[in-house]
Amino acid sequence: MLVEGEEMRSLWWDEECGCLKLIDQRRLPFQLKIFDAESIEEVSYAIKKMVVRGAPAIGCAAAYGMVLADDKEKAARILRRTRPTAHDLFYAIDYMLENEGSLEAAHSYVDSTIEKCRKIGEVGEKLIAQGSRILTHCNAGALATVDWGTALAPIRMAKDRDIFVWVDETRPRLQGLLTSWELKQEGIKHALIADNAAGYFMSMGEVDMVIVGADRIASNYDVANKIGTYEKAVLAKENGIPFYVAAPASTFDEGISDGRKIKIEERDAEEVTKIFDYVPDEVRNPAFDVTPAKYITGIITENGIIKPSDKVLR
Amino acid sequence: MLVEGEEMRSLWWDEECGCLKLIDQRRLPFQLKIFDAESIEEVSYAIKKMVVRGAPAIGCAAAYGMVLADDKEKAARILRRTRPTAHDLFYAIDYMLENEGSLEAAHSYVDSTIEKCRKIGEVGEKLIAQGSRILTHCNAGALATVDWGTALAPIRMAKDRDIFVWVDETRPRLQGLLTSWELKQEGIKHALIADNAAGYFMSMGEVDMVIVGADRIASNYDVANKIGTYEKAVLAKENGIPFYVAAPASTFDEGISDGRKIKIEERDAEEVTKIFDYVPDEVRNPAFDVTPAKYITGIITENGIIKPSDKVLR
Repeated sequence: MLVEGEEMRSLWWDEECGCLKLIDQRRLPFQLKIFDAESIEEVSYAIKKMVVRGAPAIGCAAAYGMVLADDKEKAARILRRTRPTAHDLFYAIDYMLENEGSLEAAHSYVDSTIEKCRKIGEVGEKLIAQGSRILTHCNAGALATVDWGTALAPIRMAKDRDIFVWVDETRPRLQGLLTSWELKQEGIKHALIADNAAGYFMSMGEVDMVIVGADRIASNYDVANKIGTYEKAVLAKENGIPFYVAAPASTFDEGISDGRKIKIEERDAEEVTKIFDYVPDEVRNPAFDVTPAKYITGIITENGIIKPSDKVLR
Repeated sequence: MLVEGEEMRSLWWDEECGCLKLIDQRRLPFQLKIFDAESIEEVSYAIKKMVVRGAPAIGCAAAYGMVLADDKEKAARILRRTRPTAHDLFYAIDYMLENEGSLEAAHSYVDSTIEKCRKIGEVGEKLIAQGSRILTHCNAGALATVDWGTALAPIRMAKDRDIFVWVDETRPRLQGLLTSWELKQEGIKHALIADNAAGYFMSMGEVDMVIVGADRIASNYDVANKIGTYEKAVLAKENGIPFYVAAPASTFDEGISDGRKIKIEERDAEEVTKIFDYVPDEVRNPAFDVTPAKYITGIITENGIIKPSDKVLR
């Protein structure tokens, strides 16, 4: 991805310190700062506190985290406890356990993550017509995937087609700002909107398609993704707008038959309340929701597009 | 309404200063402060800057504003330019012009606004079963209507039925905090949620009904209300959840045949961006949306419940 005109990744192994370096996503888009993770505990902290976020990037951070630990089994246990929803995390940990947690294995895991995203871009860009107005939710960009992104990969590849992106701000954590920041770096025209306004612009005929990422996909093609994704999917269907999910094949969890069985993480109330100086008696803060397959036009993967409607009997 | 245990209105005429006093809603729920409006310009400022907000309360503020002006026709012109969407504003101005802008007329307008809300509460509370979990969007409470509220009036009257209220925070202006503050004052159990989470809780079977207010209702029963209302209505329908609008009859605009003809106000980008220190190249900020009648189970008015589905051929 471009950062101030230079090619950069959202995280990388630094040979000099023998440690993991990450763009600190808690500070973006206000400030570009690098976070150094020199131990398994620091990697675990970075994942838990969302220094790094986005399922593929979390997987890559965990892969390098495994390199930093002497006791690989213990490291795996620590990392598994960080975030419960992102499937890539568990996939990466298992991959590293199978490969003795070597640096070579981690590099190869990360390179393959990036290559998958690039292919998602190639597969997905064919769906984007000249002048398309595309809505996206959360940040499924290079920050979330080390490079290219998932939802943003096709958008990046189609950037010379006079496209326009509607960016949901994505409360409570406002990851839409990260998307806005990435799009600005790439020179892609876009507008930030409150999540409440997405349905309005859909109803006004100002949205041609929706592309979002995914944290976990059940074997019936139900998709767990950032809270609010389900709302956008229902609204897209109601307005006859194609709704695409972009995700690498590693996001599919064959062990989960049905989206209703995906464990949904509820996070601290403080994520919601910190923008205002008022603490209500109760706050509920689910971080993800599940979009049933029937709302999904297609799932863009590195291997091609899966159409849930062709496969699901409901 | 109760404010720190005392009965209070959101705005009132003060005999001593011969002026309008308003609870400054820009400062709530953080601070309870009173705003004095001593001229038509100050009333106009209070409406425009959202010291007072909510269609019925805006109408009441305008009624007292007309009392403060010597040139009633000029005052009407100033007030009409403040906010374009709320129908009550225009209704109140016309009423005051017909009554020479007298204080008695303003008092009678305000008393009748409050009485209508109380009746909306009586009509609507019959819909609320024991233990109901009710979702509301924005603030359609006493703050928005001088007393009782519209959407909150039935909830207030049913407060001894072990009810629970889901409160959308309502970005960009976070009027959900006002609702949370009002519910707390009345001792009604509730949880604040990000707007993105409403669909999730609906899909999990944790919402029994939705009640919202309205800014303007077309003669085909399409409803203009706070941005995001349309999203909740579509999601409620998709999940088989009754969706009610509570509004006085004065909200109906017979001059508008169809919701698509309602002028939607777009407000400053700064409303969206002020919670973060980042200004994207473009921000779009529609303040309202239109919910087509087909999504509305019933409109609760002081005269009874209107069921759009009985009346609308689509």
